This record gives sequence, C-alpha cells and structure tokens, in this order.
Amino acid sequence: MHIAILTFDGFNELDSLVAYGMLSRLSLLGDTDWQVSIASPTPQVTSMNGLTLNAHIDLTTASTADAVLIGSGMKTREVANNADIMQQIRLDPSRQLIAAQCSGTFLLARLGLIGQMPACTDSTSKPWVQAAGVSILNQPFFTSGNLATAGGCLSSQYLVAWLLTRLKDRETAREVLHYFAPVGEKDEYVSRALAHVEAYL
Amino acid sequence: MHIAILTFDGFNELDSLVAYGMLSRLSLLGDTDWQVSIASPTPQVTSMNGLTLNAHIDLTTASTADAVLIGSGMKTREVANNADIMQQIRLDPSRQLIAAQCSGTFLLARLGLIGQMPACTDSTSKPWVQAAGVSILNQPFFTSGNLATAGGCLSSQYLVAWLLTRLKDRETAREVLHYFAPVGEKDEYVSRALAHVEAYL
Repeated sequence: MHIAILTFDGFNELDSLVAYGMLSRLSLLGDTDWQVSIASPTPQVTSMNGLTLNAHIDLTTASTADAVLIGSGMKTREVANNADIMQQIRLDPSRQLIAAQCSGTFLLARLGLIGQMPACTDSTSKPWVQAAGVSILNQPFFTSGNLATAGGCLSSQYLVAWLLTRLKDRETAREVLHYFAPVGEKDEYVSRALAHVEAYL
Repeated sequence: MHIAILTFDGFNELDSLVAYGMLSRLSLLGDTDWQVSIASPTPQVTSMNGLTLNAHIDLTTASTADAVLIGSGMKTREVANNADIMQQIRLDPSRQLIAAQCSGTFLLARLGLIGQMPACTDSTSKPWVQAAGVSILNQPFFTSGNLATAGGCLSSQYLVAWLLTRLKDRETAREVLHYFAPVGEKDEYVSRALAHVEAYL
C-alpha cells in the first residue's frame, strides 16, 4: 500500500507532515507492504516558513499510489495555474483514495474531481475555494466515496483516521491515533477522530 | 526573539515540526523580531521515517536562543551518550525558556536541568526517562519556572501555547492556536490548550 502526500513549494508544514509522521507509523512498526512518500514537482521543496526538505518521489509516481493526500500551502493558486505541474497529477477516485487538506481542496476542484460534493478547507483559503465553485462546510472533515477533505491544520489527524480506516481497519486507525494523542487525553482524541470518520460509514 | 528547535537524526516529525509551523506564524505575519529555527548537529538530518530536511542553525547557535525546544526521536539515548553533541548544547533556564517534547525530556534530564521537577513524556519513552530518575506525570503538559515538558506528539500545541504566552501574551497564543485548530472545533482546541498553560500562571 502506497500513500503519496503532494507537497509543493510554499507548503504548510503541518498539512503535509502531521499526516506523514502518523501514517508512517505502520512501516516503522514493520509493515513492509506500507509506504508513505512526500511527492513534489522538484527534488527539494521549501515550506511557507523556509524549511527545505527532500521529496521522495515525483508527481507522476505519486499518481500511481493507492492513496493520495493533497497538501496545502501559500502557493496553491500558482500550482493550479502551472500547466506543467497540473498535467503530472493524474488522479482517479475510481482506483485511489484521494484526500485534500485545507487549500488542497482547491487543487481537488481544479483537477475536476470535486463535482457537486461539499468540502472542507481552512478559513484563509475559504473565499477563493468558494470562488472556484466549491460549497464549503463549517466542519473539520467531510468524505463521500473515495474523496475526503479536511479544514484547519490539526484536522489532518482526521484524514489520517479516514485513510487508515479505509486502507486497513478501524483498530489500526485507533492504535495510531492513540499513539500520537496527548498523554492523559488519548481516549478523547481517539474518540473524536473516529467519530468524524464513522459518521460517514 | 529567537526560538530554536533541537532536531536530531531519527527525529519524530510531529515533535519538531508542529511547533515549527505554529510558532513561525508570527514571522509569516510580519513580526520581524521573531525567528524560529531548526537546530541540528549536522546541516541535514533525517527523521525516524526517512524524511531529510535542512537545518537552519547548529547547536551552538541554538544555545544562544531566547527559547529552546528539545524535540524527540528514535535516537535520543544515542544523542545523550554522544559527548560531542551534548557539549554543544549549553542551556540555562535563568536566561532562556526551555521546553522538551516526549523523549526530549530525557535530554533535559541528562543536561542536568530537570532536578526534582516532575515531567511529561510519551508512553514509549516513559520507562527509560523514569530510569534516568525523572518522575513522569500522566498528563500532557507540565511547567515550572522557565521549564516545560509535554508528552504525546499532539501535545506539542500545548508547548506552543506556553511559549507564545511567555514570550508574547495570551492573546497571541489564542490567535495562533485558533488559526491551526480544526474548523468547527476551534474554540474547543483553543480553550483546552490555554487551560493547560493557565493552570500554572
């Protein structure tokens, strides 16, 4: 199972890397059929706050993954207007799970994948995601079929819960959420995240 | 104001980078007297899950920062036994705020800074942080004076709340927490984080 996290120049650290760290827990624990990759248009990308990291794969390879999470950032509209980048992203919800975090929802729309589905995004992106024709919900997580969206950086844990529930099972999602939750608040964090996902099952 | 986040090979992505992204919000919004840096023993470090990033500063420079957050990772005990690395970390709670996340609490102890203070860490690190003589609390956040500790990756938002409250003010902490919290759950996230900090004010 391969999950690619699309990460562009100007990326928001939390929106790509909370999911990266949490989802990678399975490979860290020895699941050799589980791989999580940061996917970028260039070998290195620099975040909105000047953090430079090495991507693992390119966007063409990411398009073959079992699940793709579209990250967020300060340059999402520039990405959407870059035909060279956009033509490398070839996603298909009939064969992949596709998740979008915050302004990633804008790319989901511009890739023609969102249709009439309402969606989540962050408060900064909301006006221009709405201007792209997307109906934005005042909630942190929404899923329909093989698409899911989340709004507000710390809601990335809800996309993680959804991906793990869909690609593995509820118990795996529960274990991973429990590991990363604050000590003394683990049950509260796990219950809230699973409730978001299970509302749609 | 300069905040350095100590990040070692084998680092946990959430433990360094949630705080990095959240704390950097002030410089992103134009505060030119606010700087957040990833500090490492080498120019590049690779996480526990194989993510390689460029450090901004070395450990000697980090030691001059106004606040230092000690990240966590898979190789914390190796770091603690590396005299070359440890002698570059020269922290002083009389002139700095010092925060430790998860296994970072072990380094806090090995640097001789924790004294009799009880502390927080994650469940994996707990046995060997206890073996280092630290009394571990079953809660996500604890602070005394200029030291603070947190346990469980997603409790990094509580260290952020503490650092912003101490270096700026409650309102700044509230605004940053609000920005990063999930849509539709912002008040709940902000209240919980501020309550952890304010319990000690």
